[in-house]
Amino acid sequence: MNSELPVLKIGMLGCGVVGAQVARLLTQDADELSTRSLAKLVLARVAVRDISASREGLDPSLFTTDANSVVADPEIDLIIEVMGGIEPARSLILLAIENGKSVVTANKALLANHGDELYSAAEKKGVDLYYEAAVAGAIPILRTLRESLVGDHVTRIMGIVNGTTNFILTKMDEEGRAFEDVLAQAQSLGYAEADPTADVEGFDAAAKAAILAGLAFHTRVTADEVYREGISGITPDDVAVAKSMNHVIKLLAIAELTAEDHISVRVHPALIPRTHPLAAVRDAYNAVFVEAESAGELMFYGRGAGGAPTASAILGDVVAVARHIMKDSLGPRESDYADRDVVRIDEIRTQYLIRLDVADKSGVLAAIAQAFASENVSIQTVRQTGRGGDAELIVVTHSATEEALASTVKRLASMDMVRAVESVIRVEGVAQL
Amino acid sequence: MNSELPVLKIGMLGCGVVGAQVARLLTQDADELSTRSLAKLVLARVAVRDISASREGLDPSLFTTDANSVVADPEIDLIIEVMGGIEPARSLILLAIENGKSVVTANKALLANHGDELYSAAEKKGVDLYYEAAVAGAIPILRTLRESLVGDHVTRIMGIVNGTTNFILTKMDEEGRAFEDVLAQAQSLGYAEADPTADVEGFDAAAKAAILAGLAFHTRVTADEVYREGISGITPDDVAVAKSMNHVIKLLAIAELTAEDHISVRVHPALIPRTHPLAAVRDAYNAVFVEAESAGELMFYGRGAGGAPTASAILGDVVAVARHIMKDSLGPRESDYADRDVVRIDEIRTQYLIRLDVADKSGVLAAIAQAFASENVSIQTVRQTGRGGDAELIVVTHSATEEALASTVKRLASMDMVRAVESVIRVEGVAQL
Repeated sequence: MNSELPVLKIGMLGCGVVGAQVARLLTQDADELSTRSLAKLVLARVAVRDISASREGLDPSLFTTDANSVVADPEIDLIIEVMGGIEPARSLILLAIENGKSVVTANKALLANHGDELYSAAEKKGVDLYYEAAVAGAIPILRTLRESLVGDHVTRIMGIVNGTTNFILTKMDEEGRAFEDVLAQAQSLGYAEADPTADVEGFDAAAKAAILAGLAFHTRVTADEVYREGISGITPDDVAVAKSMNHVIKLLAIAELTAEDHISVRVHPALIPRTHPLAAVRDAYNAVFVEAESAGELMFYGRGAGGAPTASAILGDVVAVARHIMKDSLGPRESDYADRDVVRIDEIRTQYLIRLDVADKSGVLAAIAQAFASENVSIQTVRQTGRGGDAELIVVTHSATEEALASTVKRLASMDMVRAVESVIRVEGVAQL
Repeated sequence: MNSELPVLKIGMLGCGVVGAQVARLLTQDADELSTRSLAKLVLARVAVRDISASREGLDPSLFTTDANSVVADPEIDLIIEVMGGIEPARSLILLAIENGKSVVTANKALLANHGDELYSAAEKKGVDLYYEAAVAGAIPILRTLRESLVGDHVTRIMGIVNGTTNFILTKMDEEGRAFEDVLAQAQSLGYAEADPTADVEGFDAAAKAAILAGLAFHTRVTADEVYREGISGITPDDVAVAKSMNHVIKLLAIAELTAEDHISVRVHPALIPRTHPLAAVRDAYNAVFVEAESAGELMFYGRGAGGAPTASAILGDVVAVARHIMKDSLGPRESDYADRDVVRIDEIRTQYLIRLDVADKSGVLAAIAQAFASENVSIQTVRQTGRGGDAELIVVTHSATEEALASTVKRLASMDMVRAVESVIRVEGVAQL
């Protein structure tokens, strides 16, 4: 039967860990993918940097170093971009679209920084631009936001979308180890890059947060609009304090509607209660927690990275796009009709945990409480632990703005009896008071 | 802008808890839904049994008791069926399809028993038949199986897809209460029907299992092919034993590929380890755990029932179908090209926990072990607890066929030293040995 199907030729840009899996599956599962696609899918050309590298099981004649010739090839209808990075990926995708080809990409950095340009080009040219693999790997969160929840109103997304940092924080939590120690282990296991900045400083998660926020709130959001803090400052003491309060520290990507119908998009470490579904997401797993007006609370869990899981998401997109090409149709797009403002971090409201090293003498608690009150930051709980001449004071606030909190911290730091503001960490995943 | 969009008229069959929410959202969110649908969605007519019932906020002139006139109305392009039950829903949907209308339904019993007839009719007529709300309410598991995982191979699905039984089992686990006691509470809270058979005996879950298995394995599966056991036989002792082994009892809907590429589809209570992601799914929440070759393990969690969550799934389908109507296109369908055999329960392999009341004397353990060995059922662990003149013996087997297990139980029951086979419960969610 499949031999009677029309042929749809695919060009691929890049053939690293993910590309190799995509190529393997396109070749191995050709018959079944064709049945599902209404077309015989043929991987026709693959652009790579180094043509001499051995690629097991793949015909060497597929490969070329001339990526421009792949996106210009009139026989090719669909381009898979898995080279990563901004350039030349951006120019190549724009050329492919200009040449009337639909594109499937896993390139979160590119979409989070140049999405507007790419989405507009695809819309203008009437081709599909699909990118399920760009956020949370095999978890189908983008299709869910764009299609399944299209009849609902998303109010909040909280995601663990970076596997490297979740692995590190899981080990810190479960084994009481220091950040640097676990990072070194993650690097030796291949979970972290030699230069871990993109992961541990939250850049990777911020790109994904921008994409999620854009789809959920029908607004274009770029990576540079996302407030970002990484996890390199999290200490074993922070983790221990969280644990003692039955919380766990996670690097969260949060996108939410504010009371004013603006949106807040941010990436930072936060304490969440151990009873929250996200708290159970361990090691390099990803999960995205979604709150919507009608659907209520939803969570989507799975592998956020790796060759095969990412390839699964890419192939799901390839089959969808292939069907559209065969039926001369197009999939639903991201939209920007809501065009909401992204609020500055100062205006965001959340709860905070502040850990202070204070002099252990009478009147300290009253003075500290007064400092919070002066900035209109309301205290939910205080815990004081004596330790020799000084004391540790842990304050959890009610919901307050970042601005008020920053003023409070400044005021605290200037007080004689405060020896150090040891940490300030947000608290999420609880009902806002 | 929306006023320039073409109008798409919707007819609805039924207006109970779910229908009322759908009608409310279609009316309240008309503008935003229209932007997303490429059409101005208008709820034009609603067929109900009792036209005199008051329905707040809805124009009484929309209602009719003549359902046939709604599916025959040439002005209506899309039918939402939320009346439930087999007839007249089946005939009305077939008539609607015959009249060229696309259909969105939440009717799991109908699809699990007459899916083949309905899918074929829709395919022949070239209309969409969408039913995301039929399984696990607001959780977008059907679109995920049909579209997101279309480039992958699902090997196993394990779902908690009935909220009533999960509520009951959660209370039995957390509060040590008896089945009948919690059932009565669930009935008073409205979580269980006056006649709870469909929920507690697994009929509802079996219908959902049939739909999930069909989509995952590209095969038509009907409800009567699903092996089914309910939870009414689960005792506080069973729950306590599970707890002592760090497991929890859940009613699972399981669909999996066998080693012979057949499929096994079943609904029954099972012990799962507390570390399994499904173990943390409490109260009336649903979750579906999916294993796929490339994607690995995925889990989808959310509300499985209720007016608003179900309406969210229905509206997602309505927007998708409306877009297809406006673009003269069709969504991807369920397929049956794989046409796999559904194996008889006898052939299914899993692990078992067997709880025996035995005489507390020497030689008992050896004799019991011999009984298992005679049937080629390998024992993983045995735990013996003396309690007066007799003893409780808890045996967990390695993976064995249902047939071998049934013979073993028969043999055990015939032994003098076995006073009673108190329970036999499957164990799932662990690596098959």
